[in-house]
Amino acid sequence: MNKFFKNMPEVKYEGPKSTNPFAYKFYDADRIIDGKTMKEHLKFAMSWWHTLTATGTDQFGDSTIDRTYDEEDPMKVAKARVDAGFEFMKKMGIKYFCFHDVDISPEGNTFEETRNNLKEMVTYIKEKMTGTDIKLLWGTANCFGNPRYMHGAGTSCRADSFAYAAAQIKNAIDATIELGGTGYVFWGGREGYETLLNTRMDFELDNMARLMKMAVKYARSKGFKGDFYIEPKPKEPTKHQYDYDASTVLAFLRKYDLLGDFKLNIEANHATLAGHTFNHDLAVARINGVLGSVDANQGDHQLGWDTDQFPTDVKEATLAMLEIIKAGGFTNGGLNFDAKVRRPSFTYEDIIYGYISGMDTFALGLIKAYEIIEDGRIDEFVESRYSSYNEGIGKKIIEDNTSLEELEEYTLNNNDEGKLESGRQEYLENILNQILYR
Amino acid sequence: MNKFFKNMPEVKYEGPKSTNPFAYKFYDADRIIDGKTMKEHLKFAMSWWHTLTATGTDQFGDSTIDRTYDEEDPMKVAKARVDAGFEFMKKMGIKYFCFHDVDISPEGNTFEETRNNLKEMVTYIKEKMTGTDIKLLWGTANCFGNPRYMHGAGTSCRADSFAYAAAQIKNAIDATIELGGTGYVFWGGREGYETLLNTRMDFELDNMARLMKMAVKYARSKGFKGDFYIEPKPKEPTKHQYDYDASTVLAFLRKYDLLGDFKLNIEANHATLAGHTFNHDLAVARINGVLGSVDANQGDHQLGWDTDQFPTDVKEATLAMLEIIKAGGFTNGGLNFDAKVRRPSFTYEDIIYGYISGMDTFALGLIKAYEIIEDGRIDEFVESRYSSYNEGIGKKIIEDNTSLEELEEYTLNNNDEGKLESGRQEYLENILNQILYR
Amino acid sequence: MNKFFKNMPEVKYEGPKSTNPFAYKFYDADRIIDGKTMKEHLKFAMSWWHTLTATGTDQFGDSTIDRTYDEEDPMKVAKARVDAGFEFMKKMGIKYFCFHDVDISPEGNTFEETRNNLKEMVTYIKEKMTGTDIKLLWGTANCFGNPRYMHGAGTSCRADSFAYAAAQIKNAIDATIELGGTGYVFWGGREGYETLLNTRMDFELDNMARLMKMAVKYARSKGFKGDFYIEPKPKEPTKHQYDYDASTVLAFLRKYDLLGDFKLNIEANHATLAGHTFNHDLAVARINGVLGSVDANQGDHQLGWDTDQFPTDVKEATLAMLEIIKAGGFTNGGLNFDAKVRRPSFTYEDIIYGYISGMDTFALGLIKAYEIIEDGRIDEFVESRYSSYNEGIGKKIIEDNTSLEELEEYTLNNNDEGKLESGRQEYLENILNQILYR
Amino acid sequence: MNKFFKNMPEVKYEGPKSTNPFAYKFYDADRIIDGKTMKEHLKFAMSWWHTLTATGTDQFGDSTIDRTYDEEDPMKVAKARVDAGFEFMKKMGIKYFCFHDVDISPEGNTFEETRNNLKEMVTYIKEKMTGTDIKLLWGTANCFGNPRYMHGAGTSCRADSFAYAAAQIKNAIDATIELGGTGYVFWGGREGYETLLNTRMDFELDNMARLMKMAVKYARSKGFKGDFYIEPKPKEPTKHQYDYDASTVLAFLRKYDLLGDFKLNIEANHATLAGHTFNHDLAVARINGVLGSVDANQGDHQLGWDTDQFPTDVKEATLAMLEIIKAGGFTNGGLNFDAKVRRPSFTYEDIIYGYISGMDTFALGLIKAYEIIEDGRIDEFVESRYSSYNEGIGKKIIEDNTSLEELEEYTLNNNDEGKLESGRQEYLENILNQILYR
Repeated sequence: MNKFFKNMPEVKYEGPKSTNPFAYKFYDADRIIDGKTMKEHLKFAMSWWHTLTATGTDQFGDSTIDRTYDEEDPMKVAKARVDAGFEFMKKMGIKYFCFHDVDISPEGNTFEETRNNLKEMVTYIKEKMTGTDIKLLWGTANCFGNPRYMHGAGTSCRADSFAYAAAQIKNAIDATIELGGTGYVFWGGREGYETLLNTRMDFELDNMARLMKMAVKYARSKGFKGDFYIEPKPKEPTKHQYDYDASTVLAFLRKYDLLGDFKLNIEANHATLAGHTFNHDLAVARINGVLGSVDANQGDHQLGWDTDQFPTDVKEATLAMLEIIKAGGFTNGGLNFDAKVRRPSFTYEDIIYGYISGMDTFALGLIKAYEIIEDGRIDEFVESRYSSYNEGIGKKIIEDNTSLEELEEYTLNNNDEGKLESGRQEYLENILNQILYR
Repeated sequence: MNKFFKNMPEVKYEGPKSTNPFAYKFYDADRIIDGKTMKEHLKFAMSWWHTLTATGTDQFGDSTIDRTYDEEDPMKVAKARVDAGFEFMKKMGIKYFCFHDVDISPEGNTFEETRNNLKEMVTYIKEKMTGTDIKLLWGTANCFGNPRYMHGAGTSCRADSFAYAAAQIKNAIDATIELGGTGYVFWGGREGYETLLNTRMDFELDNMARLMKMAVKYARSKGFKGDFYIEPKPKEPTKHQYDYDASTVLAFLRKYDLLGDFKLNIEANHATLAGHTFNHDLAVARINGVLGSVDANQGDHQLGWDTDQFPTDVKEATLAMLEIIKAGGFTNGGLNFDAKVRRPSFTYEDIIYGYISGMDTFALGLIKAYEIIEDGRIDEFVESRYSSYNEGIGKKIIEDNTSLEELEEYTLNNNDEGKLESGRQEYLENILNQILYR
Repeated sequence: MNKFFKNMPEVKYEGPKSTNPFAYKFYDADRIIDGKTMKEHLKFAMSWWHTLTATGTDQFGDSTIDRTYDEEDPMKVAKARVDAGFEFMKKMGIKYFCFHDVDISPEGNTFEETRNNLKEMVTYIKEKMTGTDIKLLWGTANCFGNPRYMHGAGTSCRADSFAYAAAQIKNAIDATIELGGTGYVFWGGREGYETLLNTRMDFELDNMARLMKMAVKYARSKGFKGDFYIEPKPKEPTKHQYDYDASTVLAFLRKYDLLGDFKLNIEANHATLAGHTFNHDLAVARINGVLGSVDANQGDHQLGWDTDQFPTDVKEATLAMLEIIKAGGFTNGGLNFDAKVRRPSFTYEDIIYGYISGMDTFALGLIKAYEIIEDGRIDEFVESRYSSYNEGIGKKIIEDNTSLEELEEYTLNNNDEGKLESGRQEYLENILNQILYR
Repeated sequence: MNKFFKNMPEVKYEGPKSTNPFAYKFYDADRIIDGKTMKEHLKFAMSWWHTLTATGTDQFGDSTIDRTYDEEDPMKVAKARVDAGFEFMKKMGIKYFCFHDVDISPEGNTFEETRNNLKEMVTYIKEKMTGTDIKLLWGTANCFGNPRYMHGAGTSCRADSFAYAAAQIKNAIDATIELGGTGYVFWGGREGYETLLNTRMDFELDNMARLMKMAVKYARSKGFKGDFYIEPKPKEPTKHQYDYDASTVLAFLRKYDLLGDFKLNIEANHATLAGHTFNHDLAVARINGVLGSVDANQGDHQLGWDTDQFPTDVKEATLAMLEIIKAGGFTNGGLNFDAKVRRPSFTYEDIIYGYISGMDTFALGLIKAYEIIEDGRIDEFVESRYSSYNEGIGKKIIEDNTSLEELEEYTLNNNDEGKLESGRQEYLENILNQILYR
């Protein structure tokens, strides 16, 4: 179709009957649902890495996509990416983006050079943002790709790698603040172990907490008011990663007293790699008050690695949006598409199709989640299901006003036969499918 | 060979060359290792359920094993099981056992009858223990088998089921105390959900904590000095179980301030179902000070359910024993064989073979773990691996005496090229295999 | 609601807006699609076992459902089940059923008694069928539940078990013929191994083929014109089952020259346990001309065993129906619901909800599959994608009219740069979702 | 230690007590077992790709290993690799190697250039082989890495890609013949699909068979007497690969009548990714007469991708060697280490440790497999287990001399109670462990 995204058509809502492949069928940005526009509810963000820098390589194959945008000099390439990215976001109607330091700025030969490159690129991006309504959702530092992090960054056995990570994170925090980001993410791709034979897990976890505390201290001293996030992932690239899943991260945050500053960035494909559904990990985050932001993507149930596909599963998106709504919606967070087109989908059009896929899927998820709430049948069932705790012995239980002795006495005098009620899973699933497909 | 275990041979240590299938090849109970006998190190326990009551059914097949011991009346069957169990333990040289209330005592038509049955059986077992050196390792209540627990026990949506569980647990605690048990276990087979559509996860977890607090309060008031354990398992029978793995349980114990009374009972096959190695979950428990007891068994890497096989993997047992040794060995806990013979291994001899398998495997594990420690090469490598934290910037990091700013400054002045060292996984694995097979 | 199914309401189509939980929202039996009614396309069948005999037990819990229908004598229970089953099918508008011998008839103390029971029950069922349009889809023999099959049936190491299975199969074939069944199924739940240490795989597979050949010979001699099916499953209850998946069964059928009489009965949850999507295994069967019948159900992506849930995934059902339509639709086969309600869904109403779930899901699958075909965009893309084989070197390749030498020569003279086209997965997925949700 | 492998020590057998990390503890090349030396039994091969060209990248990290051997020009690098490889094989005492075309020779700007490069490199390698006893085990063509194969090679939707693959394979076959290789491998990393939505599976499989037939025809016309191998793998990089596992490939070879020329190259980690044990897939190959060659490596049971680790599991190696011995040992095939050091094991020493690990593990496997055979207890048990087929009705069954009718008659007159015998899995596992650890 075109060179980069420059000549691409604007993608607009045309409704479910349109056969224009470059139109939204379900995402109608300004449609109001429960008092907010769809775009306010969903806060879609572009991921810089998959969208602007990834080249389609995999472990068995060379790159299929050229991402140099006709430039050769690294800084010129980086700036061309900014131009392309803003073109893309404008055409798609996407209002947020997320980045790693190395996505937006080339590494130099020394740390100083790297730092200067980053500063220059931040200035360039900031100018680009001026006069637009495009915002930074969150920033992060890539402390996993460089060989110096082969043994981890905050959990490295090598103090110099820890120090380098700290320096990198300082600058990434500066960049995040400079660009007005409302979040800063820790994803620990190398924070874990390849084998326990060479690993001191306690030592490494203590250090990881130390690094995070220093980061909080620094950022707050610079006036950062946003959230810090940990993004759980159980494995890949490392055999075992410490931030396994939402619950594991909660154990860590509680142990090291980090709950005041940290929330979670939940990624769908990471949850499934950890043996959970996406909405399970969202629910765990929600009930513990740490549902911060979401990396929206999708795995493949037959594959054991992070496929980072664009979301297409509307039922999953609906259940996810239900959790997000129950949590009060996004404040500092949003829905970042940590998703990439398949390697054989190597054209610029495919990236557009991918984003349309993800945005239409979550638009349907939002619509359907509110329909479920309005329908009320599921909530009504759940309300009734727990009603035995509203009075009598149930009330005493939840008021912490009983004991094993009293409950034994109660049981001795109680005939519990015949009072069980069905869990009605099939009934509830029928309601869900009716709402999804009616 | 025999009727029950009565006429079976005593199983004794005959060494690695013996071809007597009813002899230990590696478990030499009184051999002293590092100042303690093997039996003191290992504290092997018989699981009442798999050994004395299970009948070999599976989801697709009828029972292959008769466990009525020529009796018909439920209480007579229960007493015959006690007789058989003590015969078995004596012949095998096993000094501990573990039980659920319903393993040792039949359920009656009313709770009162059930309670009385349990008391009678406890008296019978206590008499049987007199004059022997056989002890109760831990007791527990089965709050998952009866239909009343279809929606959970402590997490049930139905207050009467919660109350019934509380009453059952009270009596199981009484039984545990009466029999001198040093531990009480919570395994939450139904404490979880089948579908989030009908579930209030926060409500249910709050209630689970309430039940545990009441249990602690009651047991302590009765003088119980032992440990409470939670046994993590991620799923099966329930789709998702709240006690997913060691880290998840730690998050729970910290949230509800239960760390003072609770430790973990780690089961090998449960760890692997949760996506971990056995020694990973042991290590997580150890570094958090909650490695209490162990359910020794083994899963099948190709199967997605709890196969509860007798341990045969000596490398895994060695790595497990290394963690247990590092944790200081067992105090109140021990190695319970939560393991069963395969369904087509339906004879009494097979149970003996199974226990020999497990005991010889862990005996080797103990021997090899100490050989690794004495060999010293692995520890030496690890010591050296982290040595950059012994001085300079590394020392400042672990003394909480630096900041992002200082670390940036350090990095600016530091040339980190060329100083990376290999993780040496292959070298370490070679040492491990050499020790295992030399 | 009622005692058994007797007083249950008739379940009828009321359309997608109905809030009557006992109505079909999408299955409109007599609606014509592409010249055939929905009920002719779908050929829904009731599974006798899950619907009429299963009691809700699992490996950790007792039965939650009473299936004795107020009777005690086994033959009276069996007849009450027939009555209940026909009530159920009539009320639901289901026109087919499937059974194992032991589902419809109790085992006696001797083989002769068992055989006589079966004959009596077949007579009873046949009378019941008279005057209805309810038909037998297929029959089978349960050669896995009884302890005699602990080592397999056709693959048993014990000749008497092989002989018993043969005798059982003979009678199950007789019953199938007597009741007008158009298919006979082999599901080899114990045809496999627990450990290769005690197994002769070649010997066992040879014997399995022998048993099948005898079965074909016998049935054809009795005038059976229907299809034989093998139902693949990779594991559970046995560690490894020989009929792993569709491709494995094809290797077997080809090796033993059984392709003339055998097709496959593909089950969704078995395909996923083998690492495939449901439609993958259907496609494998289709392109090899052996797509015979379908066991419609659904697994749980987080669980490693056969959960046999009622289908709710409309996308999966749509892709399945596309394969079935491409295969020319069902002839002797149909859609059997090898599905059960969850254990906590223990009421009769829940069974109805379960069947509504499965039937509405596949009704949507049928509707959407035809919409995809009519829409034409996906087929058009695929047609074009392979068009390079319509002429030139491509044509020579598919006409077996070239060689490595010629293809090298061609390549030497060909510049293949720039001519690659995207696979357009995201574009095609968007079309699919548009059709599913518009 | 050294620059490349030039100054590395020769690795020799020093026995199980040696603490020299650069010595074999168990692999004693000239030790005779059952009339053949260990090196003749095992036929270890070096994989060119992992050993000489791979740089330690993964999907989240840059290369950790420099493989340019101080050269810049691609042909000079390639030659330096040959030098390094032969140094390595000599020092390790490895007598075979395996390669892809692109491992040994850089791709040029045109196919002609690529072809010329390959010819030049083959000449260079051939000279290097002169006067050594180092041989080529097998060759293959990399038809998966280049973007032109993004949709497959033999199964590509694009005829030009098929043609290119054919041309590449022709030259790889020429190279294999020129270097005296006894095998030619097809591994279909892209022969499969990313989505069935855009795929004609039947068309693609027909084409794959066409390509193989052309390859056989060509190679035979050039005098190639070796074996063709298909190497099964279920997935990765492609979502589904057609050569899923040994059984799937057998179905394919039978369908397209390729059994005369093709055998299997079984890889451990590919078998486990397909849900099997390594020795299962070896057994399937063996009983079908197609056990050709082996890619010896090891996966990680917690990871869902091909980790290609060096073998360390002695039990697995023992069971594998038992299958290989039962198949009559290797003829044209051997044990190729398709294995790589972990990314943080980035030094040349680590590669040596890795090979020592694999070679010692398989040496132990060979020794232990023969000990099992000599011990005889397992074989004796299995012999006895199937003995009911040696006479009576069992004999009639395996002589194809009975029928369902006769077997029913037999069963009616037979009382099968009480004659079942245990499968004795635990007993057999104890023998296995005794032999492994005595």
